[in-house]
This record gives sequence, C-alpha cells and structure tokens, in this order.
Amino acid sequence: MKQKIFLIVGLGLIGGCYAQGLSKQGYTVYAIDPDEEAVAFALDKGYIKKGASFPKPELIQEADAVVLGLYPAKMVDWVRGNQQYFKPGIFVTDVSGVKRAVVYDVQAVLRPDAEFIAAHPMAGKEVSGVQNSDNRIFLEANYIVTPTDKNTPAGIDFAEELGRTLRFDRITTLSPEEHDRMIGYLSQLTHAIAVSLMNANPNEHLVAYTGDSFRDLTRIAKINETMWTELFFLNKDMLVPEIDAFIAALNHLKEQVQTENAQELKRLFVQSTQRRRLFDKG
Amino acid sequence: MKQKIFLIVGLGLIGGCYAQGLSKQGYTVYAIDPDEEAVAFALDKGYIKKGASFPKPELIQEADAVVLGLYPAKMVDWVRGNQQYFKPGIFVTDVSGVKRAVVYDVQAVLRPDAEFIAAHPMAGKEVSGVQNSDNRIFLEANYIVTPTDKNTPAGIDFAEELGRTLRFDRITTLSPEEHDRMIGYLSQLTHAIAVSLMNANPNEHLVAYTGDSFRDLTRIAKINETMWTELFFLNKDMLVPEIDAFIAALNHLKEQVQTENAQELKRLFVQSTQRRRLFDKG
Repeated sequence: MKQKIFLIVGLGLIGGCYAQGLSKQGYTVYAIDPDEEAVAFALDKGYIKKGASFPKPELIQEADAVVLGLYPAKMVDWVRGNQQYFKPGIFVTDVSGVKRAVVYDVQAVLRPDAEFIAAHPMAGKEVSGVQNSDNRIFLEANYIVTPTDKNTPAGIDFAEELGRTLRFDRITTLSPEEHDRMIGYLSQLTHAIAVSLMNANPNEHLVAYTGDSFRDLTRIAKINETMWTELFFLNKDMLVPEIDAFIAALNHLKEQVQTENAQELKRLFVQSTQRRRLFDKG
Repeated sequence: MKQKIFLIVGLGLIGGCYAQGLSKQGYTVYAIDPDEEAVAFALDKGYIKKGASFPKPELIQEADAVVLGLYPAKMVDWVRGNQQYFKPGIFVTDVSGVKRAVVYDVQAVLRPDAEFIAAHPMAGKEVSGVQNSDNRIFLEANYIVTPTDKNTPAGIDFAEELGRTLRFDRITTLSPEEHDRMIGYLSQLTHAIAVSLMNANPNEHLVAYTGDSFRDLTRIAKINETMWTELFFLNKDMLVPEIDAFIAALNHLKEQVQTENAQELKRLFVQSTQRRRLFDKG
C-alpha cells in the first residue's frame, strides 16, 4: 500500500491484531484508545510507534489511513468529532461485524474529500483486549469488503490490499445488505443457538458426561455481552427471521420424531449430511 | 479380566474398535457379522482371530463374554436366537446409545444363568464400518455403565473393567433412566440442532464465507440416518421435551432482540458464558 502511517482508533482485540500485522509488514502504526493500559501494552510490545489515551490531533494529522476499531454505535460520533484533522484524500475503514447500520451513516457525515470503505475481518477469540491480540487469527479467516455507491475503485483497492497485507485467507466483496444477511445466518444465528443451548437447562451436573460434540456446539456460548447485544440489535431485521426459520426446521424434525415418521426423518438427516459435506475444508 | 475369549456381535465402527482394543491388550477376539467384507477386513488386520458372516455356534460356545455391537432393535432377537450356545455364567454387554429401550427387554429374555450388563461407549466418528475403526477414539471418551436391579456386583465389575481395558478416559455409572435423560440433552438435542441448522436454509452459496464457529456447530450434521432415526425414536420421550426447552430458550432470546431489552439479553449472554466455562477441559 502506498499509505505509510496507519492510525488505529480503538485498541481492542481486533484493533490490536491490525496494529500487530501492519507493523510486522513495515508500516508505521499509531493508536488512540481511552484505555491507558492498552496503549502502554501496545507501545511496549512494539505493535504501535505512537499512542495516546487522550485526544491528540497530531496523531490523526500524520495518518495516511484510519482503521476504526470501535463498536458500531461509536463510529459516527468519532468521525464527526475528529475528521477536521484528516489529511485530504484519506481512506477510512472499520472492523465492525454489522454493516448497514454503520456504513451509510459514516459515509453521510464524512468530509467529501475523504472516503469510508467498510470491511469485516471475520475473526475473533473468546477473550477480548489488545493483550490477547494475535494477528495469526487472520491466517484462516475471511475478510469481506462492503462497498456502496459512494466508494471509488481506489477505495475498494485500498481495503482489499489492506486485507492482503494482513494475510487473510480469503478476500471477497459483498454489498452491506448481502453481508448482513449472511452474517445473520452464519454467525449471529449460530451464537444465538449456542447461548440458548447453554441456557435451556441447568446443566452443571452434566459436565462429567460431556463429549466433544456438545463442547464444539457451545464453544461460542462464551460471548462478549456488550458487543454482541449491540450487534444483535443492529441486525435484528435479518437475525429474527433466521431464528424463526431455524425453529421451524427444528419443529419439523421434532414432529417426525413424535409421529415416528422414519422416511421423512431419514430424509432430513441425509439432506443435512449432504449439505454439510460442502462445508468441509478442502 | 478373567475372561479370555470375547465374541463381538456386529462388526461396525464401534464393534471394530472393541475388537482392536481387546486384541491389542492380549485377549482373543471372535466376531460375527453378516457382512463378509467386514469380517475379512478384521481378520486381515488382526483385530479378530476367528470370524463368520453366517451362524456359527462354535464361536459363541467358546466365548467367555459377548459384546453386542448391534443396533438397539436387533439385540433382543439375537439374544433369543443364540443364547442356547452361551457358556453358563457368561457376561453379555452392549454399545447402544439408548438404554431403557434395550436393557429391560434383553434382561427379560436372557437365560437366568447369564447376565446382561449394559454400557455406552460415548465415542464415534463421522464415518461408519469396521474399515474406519480406530480404538484411539476411546482415549478421550466417556464410558457409562447402566446397571439395573437385575445386575450383580460381579457383572458391574466386569463392565467397568472392560471400559478400563479399552482405555476410556472416564468410567461412570448411571441408571438407564438417568443415562437416557442425559443423552437426550447432551447428544440427541445437539444433533437435532446441527441437522436443523443445516436444513433451515439453502446455504450452499455461503460456503465461501463460513468460519470455524459455523463449522464447529454443524460438524455432527453429518449423521448415519438409519442409526440416529432408531436412537431418536427409542428415546423420544426424553428428546422431545429437551427440544421444547431449547426452543423456549431461543424464543426468549429472540424476544429480547425484538424488544431491544439490553439488560435481559446481556444477562443471557453472561449466564451462557459462565455455564460454558465449567465445560472447558482442565
């Protein structure tokens, strides 16, 4: 990338991974985060060259590109309050897990001589904070760029090149709508299921009998409650119909068990087996 | 174990693992299975010393113990048709994934000078058949003995010692009722969920965007339709209420999303996180 200096706004787990990955590739990285310890940790580890836990305009003024590592609801306010320091022609991107709720709003408030190009790094860990950052989580992960009519080919190129620089496994492009529909099923519904499976039953006495299937199914039931509450609310028009479709499928299966309809139950098992095979990794 | 010669009836994946594990420990293993190729394979690999794909009374007559590796519905018939060849005092065990439906029936028809002590090796693979047997799947797995009033301390000892010989990670005892309730939630409900998640949605176009969470949640959607249809039907009085409880929990979560009740949704996430931590392996 022709950009030399990157500013990370929000040094959480993912912001920290971006800082790590970019500095390993020879870019200069700055960071802003209200958490003094997060900034000190990133400086100490060499993830960033400069950092501040308080408003520091010169970090923004020097930056050639900005990565918003903030929760979705905080992005618009940060852009509104700080864009006067942006270099003209700057590219701004983000890491948010929902897109419609942020992309259009940020693009609407942004200075006309800057460009916001959204992207979703589909990676995470069960723990949060820059102290747990490890940019190797990107090696097996998808990175999705979600451009709108307002984006330029140069802006999309920048986001894709950032994904390659961070060494994501696969880089693709979806509209914000396509992205949010996909994430509602593949990610949000699966988290809702895992959480509900843990909550359906007082199950502490079953730990001793638990096999890997149950552990695999519930691993993501350990969840950052603040971030996921925000993500669920911002995508509820996509998530709620996915929950309904899943419950309908499960109720259909239940009816075949209740009525002992072996033919239809076997058909359901065969269909799930065939579909799931497509998802096996090469 | 003081028993020297084991007869495996049904050389499927699990029967094959028993044969492998027992012969590695120095026991003599015979097997009966209508599938000629399965018997030939096990002989060739040294899993068994003698085998037959047709009724062969002398294999039964020589056996000191019998392991029924059959589908639940076939056990009673096999015992009824072959127990005239049993040595007096023989122990008979099984590998079935449901217990109430087989234990009482087999014990009711069994000769009074023989003892049926049921056990469930909670291990499996996505593929079936002795050709895929690998007794190392027991190293991380639970083995549950499910005695009834008809069992003797010697019979229970035999089953537990068999589990230790096969090197299971953890050997426990539950009543058939406790076992079936536990399995309805931990195993059958999780399989019903994985299958329904795959079936809820035509999802072939989403393969490219799929992360590990979705793959973890749906791995067990690849399922042996004949065996699992039988297991679900035989345990439906336990499974159906577990499905209902899970759907109630998921609907409750959905309502918090629809009404944007952040406090209750966060409580659900915190509860699932805390409960799931108990299931992390040491």
